[in-house]
Amino acid sequence: MKCIQRTYKYGSILLWLGRGAGADRPSPAAAPERLPFSRVTPEDVAFFRKILPGRTITDPDLLESNNVDWLKSVRGSSEVLLRPQTTEDVSQILKYCNSRNLAVNPQGGNTGLVGGSVPVYDEIILSTALMNNILTFDSISGILTCQAGCVLENLSLYLEERDYIMPLDLGAKGSCHIGGNVATNAGGLRLLRYGSLRGTVLGLEAVLADGQVLNCLAKLRKDNTGYDLKQLFIGSEGTLGVITAVSILCPRKPKSVNVVFLGCETFEQLLKTFQLCKGMLGEILSAYEFLDSECMRLLNTHLKLPNPISDCPFYVVIETSGSDPTHDGEKLHNFLDEAMTSSLVTDGTVATEDSKIKALWSMRERVTEALTHDGFTYKYDISLPVERIYQLVTDMREHLGDRAKSVVGYGHVGDGNLHLNVTSPTKDPALLAAIEPFVYEWTASCHGSISAEHGLGLKKRNYIYYSKPSQAVALMGNIKAMLDPKGILNPYKTLPDDLK
Amino acid sequence: MKCIQRTYKYGSILLWLGRGAGADRPSPAAAPERLPFSRVTPEDVAFFRKILPGRTITDPDLLESNNVDWLKSVRGSSEVLLRPQTTEDVSQILKYCNSRNLAVNPQGGNTGLVGGSVPVYDEIILSTALMNNILTFDSISGILTCQAGCVLENLSLYLEERDYIMPLDLGAKGSCHIGGNVATNAGGLRLLRYGSLRGTVLGLEAVLADGQVLNCLAKLRKDNTGYDLKQLFIGSEGTLGVITAVSILCPRKPKSVNVVFLGCETFEQLLKTFQLCKGMLGEILSAYEFLDSECMRLLNTHLKLPNPISDCPFYVVIETSGSDPTHDGEKLHNFLDEAMTSSLVTDGTVATEDSKIKALWSMRERVTEALTHDGFTYKYDISLPVERIYQLVTDMREHLGDRAKSVVGYGHVGDGNLHLNVTSPTKDPALLAAIEPFVYEWTASCHGSISAEHGLGLKKRNYIYYSKPSQAVALMGNIKAMLDPKGILNPYKTLPDDLK
Repeated sequence: MKCIQRTYKYGSILLWLGRGAGADRPSPAAAPERLPFSRVTPEDVAFFRKILPGRTITDPDLLESNNVDWLKSVRGSSEVLLRPQTTEDVSQILKYCNSRNLAVNPQGGNTGLVGGSVPVYDEIILSTALMNNILTFDSISGILTCQAGCVLENLSLYLEERDYIMPLDLGAKGSCHIGGNVATNAGGLRLLRYGSLRGTVLGLEAVLADGQVLNCLAKLRKDNTGYDLKQLFIGSEGTLGVITAVSILCPRKPKSVNVVFLGCETFEQLLKTFQLCKGMLGEILSAYEFLDSECMRLLNTHLKLPNPISDCPFYVVIETSGSDPTHDGEKLHNFLDEAMTSSLVTDGTVATEDSKIKALWSMRERVTEALTHDGFTYKYDISLPVERIYQLVTDMREHLGDRAKSVVGYGHVGDGNLHLNVTSPTKDPALLAAIEPFVYEWTASCHGSISAEHGLGLKKRNYIYYSKPSQAVALMGNIKAMLDPKGILNPYKTLPDDLK
Repeated sequence: MKCIQRTYKYGSILLWLGRGAGADRPSPAAAPERLPFSRVTPEDVAFFRKILPGRTITDPDLLESNNVDWLKSVRGSSEVLLRPQTTEDVSQILKYCNSRNLAVNPQGGNTGLVGGSVPVYDEIILSTALMNNILTFDSISGILTCQAGCVLENLSLYLEERDYIMPLDLGAKGSCHIGGNVATNAGGLRLLRYGSLRGTVLGLEAVLADGQVLNCLAKLRKDNTGYDLKQLFIGSEGTLGVITAVSILCPRKPKSVNVVFLGCETFEQLLKTFQLCKGMLGEILSAYEFLDSECMRLLNTHLKLPNPISDCPFYVVIETSGSDPTHDGEKLHNFLDEAMTSSLVTDGTVATEDSKIKALWSMRERVTEALTHDGFTYKYDISLPVERIYQLVTDMREHLGDRAKSVVGYGHVGDGNLHLNVTSPTKDPALLAAIEPFVYEWTASCHGSISAEHGLGLKKRNYIYYSKPSQAVALMGNIKAMLDPKGILNPYKTLPDDLK
């Protein structure tokens, strides 16, 4: 894999993004040409230092980690990092940048997987890291309001002390910001039970490209007064406005949590087990996750994690969360009894205490880490009708043959969300060309989504047409033009190049 | 109360909407002047008859019920009712109307409470009544897709046969259409448990003002490919597009349902009971509704419904839905034991069999009907922080003194949603002037919503500023102008007159 190196007067871009098989045809994932935004001048920096004294960073060493995404797949060359503390700070920054035609990259915890959270060229980085205050919490309704830069795990800890939990949980919880979670409509492990952020986010405040503050920070479960503008910002990856605060409906902390790790002989049995489980565990089911035997092999090999049960082609992690330990235990027992008797599952183990629960969950959560040790990883985050999700893994394996090192499937069965990963010893353009557009065409043929929860960012923006009709994409372009006519907010992200 | 009568060449409008106290100052709820849309010509009717043979209705008798809302508070004078069967029909109608500058009133079951579902003047009525096909149902994922004109109760019956239920339930279920439910973001009785339509509607198809079909009819639980356009249409009351089909995530049918009817001495105790109930019933709690003693008096007086327990200032209806009758019974027993022991509730009765469940629910559901027998009713649908919801009733009662016949409060405590109703023997402009803007100012002072679930429609459009800042309303106007530049879709609704 050759790197694509471009050098500009005020910055450089080094992209490890894939190229297509044709030698000179750049991958649709590669960065487009830099758009004609202004360059940051010493006068601009002086202005920022005036409004953000001590919080305008230009030291390249300090900027390094903000310029690169955590997969180290996209590197920008921003020379200015701004760390506002208030909505008014953000408003002043954007008003100025818009008037000067300076591009801005809003950044939360920088844990995104599609290159949406870092600059592509020399965009000014606007970090929410110092906007980390909890504003209010109502212990009757469970409604939390906070600034966008609160770290998800900190919010979780705050709530757990008050007998509540956040409605979302992710592997990146120790770093990701709630504003970034909302901006990317993060899914994660609790979606099956508590639904998506589109239902649990009750309000938000955003600053528009021109610096105007849009206050939709309602703390109400129901509000039908006009169009629901907050939805525009949920999942728009910072391209329509900078989210500065959110209000979220939080569920009660469950009094009892159980985790089961099961093995199935076929994916069909795994799906039948899911059906049985929905019926018998009902309202206490809070996660139904899976991994295949290839994932288990990588966990064994690279992380030395032993299989807690006997070897099977498929493994399931089921979590229950309820309000009565005895009842939950009985439901789980009855379900396991039925699943074993009917031979849907071949082996299994149950955890009720914290340390064993964590150990079982790590079999699912550490697959990503195991993959990084297996070689270069091509990652796909696909939504499909649930009965089709493993067929894509099987077909991909057959399609690639021995060109891939490993082809693994895991993910959120309960949500119809497959994480398909393909590894090779090093980056391999020929392998990439064999995977794409095959994976996208296959997904489109099942009316699936080529990004279930990761978003489009830089890397997947041009694949949007596999999941959305051209009229819809054109309308998205109109919305972008309406809210950000100069296109300064997170350019090169989410929308395809052909709209520009 | 004088009626406002206007006569036009092609129609007349008779409005019973209130006027302000000032003799000649029309109420903000009254209809504005007719906008300069074209009038329907014989050539237009001929065109419609060609594309909708036998489904283009011009007989005034047949049009009568479509011209009046079910509260009989708004009457339009449309002379054409169109009954498309397919999305393509709707597309042809709108393309033609847009080119001819003919206004269109999309209509579902016509059960709305804010005058949003009927024409104001001579708008063409586009009814979804014949678009009533169920398209697909996936019994693994529980995802239903159907045309917009399916009646909610029919969908419920269809699903219950398949061991699923709809995620929403309303008093109007026997008439309302799912397309109308989605277009108004209907709330109802199950929102506490299953969340709002913003989370459960997975996809929709809408026809834009120019006839363009926007296909966002995904059947996926997760899809982060670009902006979530479907959210624009949820709750926009037919002003941005005509919803023609939807896909919805449906929950499993509960195996056990219990209903409890309790009495509390104070609203504070009622709220403490809610807290206790959330903790002890946890995941099986599916409704927490209340009515006050004034509601009970009206139920006794007008409907001869006897109080199932002893007289109390406040009554609560609690519903549980779960997967295990024994467990649910135990949880309920433990909760009731604690609630009685701690004197939070003073009396109560439990129902587990269908007929008694229905009887207890009717104490809550038939309050609306009892009110219609009490006189002319001024209806308010308010969202407030849950601990404030009854204070508004108390303050209103004190504020109105003996000018009102009855001032009653009931609603969805679990969602912070109060239905405040004031009756008088006949329409009373002086009473109305005492209620409004008092009720809206009170709500705004608590950062509440002046329409929790009913929407704005014709009647409440000009009150939007009590719940939304002017920047937000201006942005809504821009969205309307972008999607419907001629403003032909459901004019005079949702957005305030000053945007026009």
